[in-house]
Amino acid sequence: MADNTRRPEPRYGNRPTMKDVAARAGVGLKTVSRVVNGEPGVTPDTERRVQESIDALGFRRNDSARVLRKGRTASIGLVLEDLADPFYGPLNRAVEEVARAHGALLINGSSAEDPDREQELVLALCARRVDGLIVIPAGHDHRYLEPEIKAGVATVFVDRPAGRIDADAVLSDSFGGARSGVAHLIAHGHRRIGFIGDQPRIHTASERLRGYRTAMADAGLAIHDDWVSLGTTAPKRVQDAVVAMLAGPEPVTAIFTGNNRVTVTVVRVLAAHDRPVALVGFDDIELADLLDPGVTVIAQDAATLGRTAAERLFHRLDGAADAPSQVVLPTRLIARGSGEIPPPAEG
Amino acid sequence: MADNTRRPEPRYGNRPTMKDVAARAGVGLKTVSRVVNGEPGVTPDTERRVQESIDALGFRRNDSARVLRKGRTASIGLVLEDLADPFYGPLNRAVEEVARAHGALLINGSSAEDPDREQELVLALCARRVDGLIVIPAGHDHRYLEPEIKAGVATVFVDRPAGRIDADAVLSDSFGGARSGVAHLIAHGHRRIGFIGDQPRIHTASERLRGYRTAMADAGLAIHDDWVSLGTTAPKRVQDAVVAMLAGPEPVTAIFTGNNRVTVTVVRVLAAHDRPVALVGFDDIELADLLDPGVTVIAQDAATLGRTAAERLFHRLDGAADAPSQVVLPTRLIARGSGEIPPPAEG
Repeated sequence: MADNTRRPEPRYGNRPTMKDVAARAGVGLKTVSRVVNGEPGVTPDTERRVQESIDALGFRRNDSARVLRKGRTASIGLVLEDLADPFYGPLNRAVEEVARAHGALLINGSSAEDPDREQELVLALCARRVDGLIVIPAGHDHRYLEPEIKAGVATVFVDRPAGRIDADAVLSDSFGGARSGVAHLIAHGHRRIGFIGDQPRIHTASERLRGYRTAMADAGLAIHDDWVSLGTTAPKRVQDAVVAMLAGPEPVTAIFTGNNRVTVTVVRVLAAHDRPVALVGFDDIELADLLDPGVTVIAQDAATLGRTAAERLFHRLDGAADAPSQVVLPTRLIARGSGEIPPPAEG
Repeated sequence: MADNTRRPEPRYGNRPTMKDVAARAGVGLKTVSRVVNGEPGVTPDTERRVQESIDALGFRRNDSARVLRKGRTASIGLVLEDLADPFYGPLNRAVEEVARAHGALLINGSSAEDPDREQELVLALCARRVDGLIVIPAGHDHRYLEPEIKAGVATVFVDRPAGRIDADAVLSDSFGGARSGVAHLIAHGHRRIGFIGDQPRIHTASERLRGYRTAMADAGLAIHDDWVSLGTTAPKRVQDAVVAMLAGPEPVTAIFTGNNRVTVTVVRVLAAHDRPVALVGFDDIELADLLDPGVTVIAQDAATLGRTAAERLFHRLDGAADAPSQVVLPTRLIARGSGEIPPPAEG
């Protein structure tokens, strides 16, 4: 414990102002303003006096005031779905690197998959005059953003498209990736394949489900009702789904998982299961290659998603006025063992 | 691709103002201000007219202006070290939950372990008038924050202490955790134990190194120069360090790793090594229990770190004026196999 008995300073309202700086330096307010904003018309000697006064008082330019005056900040906002999901880490970092390369500050927040919270956060960032927004949407109706977009806030959606407005979006090929992952299991002999996914109101979740259904239909395979389980990524929910699929009258011999959070739980359940079950998961997961078996995945490139979205945003901020477009990035199947387990011989 | 040919709106400067709202509603500016700020003195009929005008124009209250007027926002800033490090995910989310429970917006950014960038980000957040800051410091001199703290920005440091100023801090017991982890390896018979850690200028890295040295000294064991490797967590650097420690004239039989990023690389290298080497890592890592052997770790509680720091911050914002203090949270050894591998019989 620190042994410090310093009296705390009064907490609000004693921030030095430009007036204080001007009084101390013995110059006019306009002169201080010129120095602070790097404008010409100040002699080197006066500039030095003002700078000394700024340093002595600990004066800092008030960017909130500056924003009101100039109508521009150098900042962009990023609204994520979940700050603790490792999938968003590289995306977040890639956006930050692009922002930094453009001299802009990145401000983040998370919607926790709640459309109201997304809207609250987006509008709070707009009220703080960010120049642009990158949004991983939780909701499906983004008409609330129209006045902001009209007022000049460039907006790019990433990972999931905007709802009910036209806006730039950068997505992974969820449908194609899931379809190829399920086709991979079918090619290894599986006929009874389960799908455990996230909540179907999430765009990526429904696209991956569609990929699963399409791959099964392509192969002429029917889907038993018990083979599809959609819901939250809570471990208990996923665990119950796996157990049910493996215990039913027509147990699955393979599982396709809809995202990294689901995959981690399924890997855990299958490790404790008494016979091998094939698994392909959407999203790569750390250490997947060192497990036994290694986990076969459909990998997205989260960093490229983030970088592409951020570059698109700065392109807009630089004045690009072409119509909004959607970029869809390919996924990649990485075979590591779990997806190549054959079905048991039929008894 | 979206097929949209809508002409883009001009990008800046056409945001509706309170004056526009007042003109459209046929009321005075003060009346609009009352409605916007929920102040009394407006008849229900007038309030409805103003609200209709607000909706029609898409007017939004300008929080930057409000901040200047009231001196308070409802927002806190969190400066992380690396947005992509999974260790910070639960910390980040815990801070966000506490902020939300207090009705405050959380704004994040990352220093990327660069002291200049930390300072730039912290001051940018202060300039945007956050009420409080939670900082995982990259630098060692935080005197630049003194004017902000005097001006009322409550500040709590987390994971690492502040440098050269008195400030609240919430830390994990890096020294004690590393010491107990190395003692665990010694208790399993190891005498030649390597330490691979992060850059020693990082407080947690130097504290963990001190824990290693202390545990070795406690057991009367000398430390060979080749057994300690400090540097970045880049996989290549860590890989070279492991290879060198295992190849030297006095090869180590056990390794203690200084954080999760280092552990992941060491696990990977040891999986390809021809004889078993014991391992205890600082920080838990996902799926550590499913590897063979399971990875023994010294686990920190990142969520509790974040929650404790955020609660401390809001305690300050509520007016607590006691002297800054340091809270040190305990770590926990989780034995899973890798830390219980005995040394090879001496030949």
